[in-house]
Amino acid sequence: MSESGATISGKQPLIFITNDDGITAPGLRALVEAMLPLGDVWVIAPDKHMSGMGHAVTFTDILQLSPHDYGMGVQGAWDCSGTPVDCVKLGIAEVLHRKPDLLVSGINHGSNASINVIYSGTMSAAVEGAVESIPSIGFSLMDERLDADFEAAGLVARKLASQVLKHGLPEGTCLNVNIPVGRPADLGDIKICRQAMGYWKDSFDRRDSPHGRPYYWMRGEFYNPDKGADTDIAALEAGHVSVVPIHFDMTAHHAIGQINQWGL
Amino acid sequence: MSESGATISGKQPLIFITNDDGITAPGLRALVEAMLPLGDVWVIAPDKHMSGMGHAVTFTDILQLSPHDYGMGVQGAWDCSGTPVDCVKLGIAEVLHRKPDLLVSGINHGSNASINVIYSGTMSAAVEGAVESIPSIGFSLMDERLDADFEAAGLVARKLASQVLKHGLPEGTCLNVNIPVGRPADLGDIKICRQAMGYWKDSFDRRDSPHGRPYYWMRGEFYNPDKGADTDIAALEAGHVSVVPIHFDMTAHHAIGQINQWGL
Repeated sequence: MSESGATISGKQPLIFITNDDGITAPGLRALVEAMLPLGDVWVIAPDKHMSGMGHAVTFTDILQLSPHDYGMGVQGAWDCSGTPVDCVKLGIAEVLHRKPDLLVSGINHGSNASINVIYSGTMSAAVEGAVESIPSIGFSLMDERLDADFEAAGLVARKLASQVLKHGLPEGTCLNVNIPVGRPADLGDIKICRQAMGYWKDSFDRRDSPHGRPYYWMRGEFYNPDKGADTDIAALEAGHVSVVPIHFDMTAHHAIGQINQWGL
Repeated sequence: MSESGATISGKQPLIFITNDDGITAPGLRALVEAMLPLGDVWVIAPDKHMSGMGHAVTFTDILQLSPHDYGMGVQGAWDCSGTPVDCVKLGIAEVLHRKPDLLVSGINHGSNASINVIYSGTMSAAVEGAVESIPSIGFSLMDERLDADFEAAGLVARKLASQVLKHGLPEGTCLNVNIPVGRPADLGDIKICRQAMGYWKDSFDRRDSPHGRPYYWMRGEFYNPDKGADTDIAALEAGHVSVVPIHFDMTAHHAIGQINQWGL
């Protein structure tokens, strides 16, 4: 696919946009609109809904890429049969042929604050960007509706993307940005936070198929016992935008000393 | 499925076993064998290969559970249509009806050291256990072959599981255990490590379908520029077993101060 890569001008920042709601999602269009003034925009996004895919990668099956008529003045757009992380890996290797200057993912329809960062395909795409040393940001609006109002979220995305293009990000980190519902005039401050230690309390709807076989729908209710004022959840509850720097070093460094005392 | 939950004795530790290679994998049988002397063993594992599924969860589709004739003296065994993380959530809610005393995942056919922790379904099941406050361990043998020799790995698994049942684990952490290939007599020490900052350099095999449409197979080569002696990769290269305590707080705490200087 070198013919597509050949059209990269190299004069403006190269911006890679993906998401997990799929290439037709309104949230993706809002993010494209927000990024267009900042650089050359490429869209490589899943060809279907990929919410909750976490950091899944496809190496036991094939991947397909198809050109997508996206409009809006993007340099190129492709839909991909894989997960958001597949889109990042395949997009860089086979469409762009070089590392982008910025990777943005979203704007997700629904929150990815707190523990949702590990379930979220939107955020996993941004984390994969960080693994590949690309300044990366995932954006999520706290409104799951297809017709959500992304105007305020788009302004936040443009502001933060400009700042990241200017300052870069510490090596191996990306940003998890969550934006409360509201009009631009209602937006609170931008708060740099830590991930709240919340979790989903799972439950399942058990139903029976027409053939008498049981099946289950996952449900769940989010709980947050972590009342710290420095958390993303606290910022969002106060009407602010939360920004959590995320890294992929999952080592619990504080636990090493304790386990060493077992005398293994 | 309360009829299954009703058989839980409550006298011995309740041990939940899952994996990502699927319920028929030899590595799972090796882990079951290793755990049987330690408690009441329940197996709830994917009905097919789920490698590379990361922390994917299924909430946009249904999940199915089927009783599985596992033998070997387990208390119960079920295969699940979902991901490893789905197995953990559904298994606890609908099969066990209470938190297990220990969750073990594996033994994976292949390494999950370094960055593989975020791609691995085996490790994501263990991380989900940690999210649900269950002492959890993921085990991986550095041999991808179906007929790998799991004897040494089984001994390591039994030893570490006993220790975790005795000492517990720090809140919100689980263990990522990787075991080098070899006979029991060849096993080195057990080293408590940090995750090496390695990564996969991706490449793709581009092929054409019989209908002339291109498709891609993901390949990749693992690079580890992180030469620290305290890393999992260093331990494994020296023939030791690596144990990395893993947590799900993905906040890059060290980056908060730096980003606060942007004056957003």
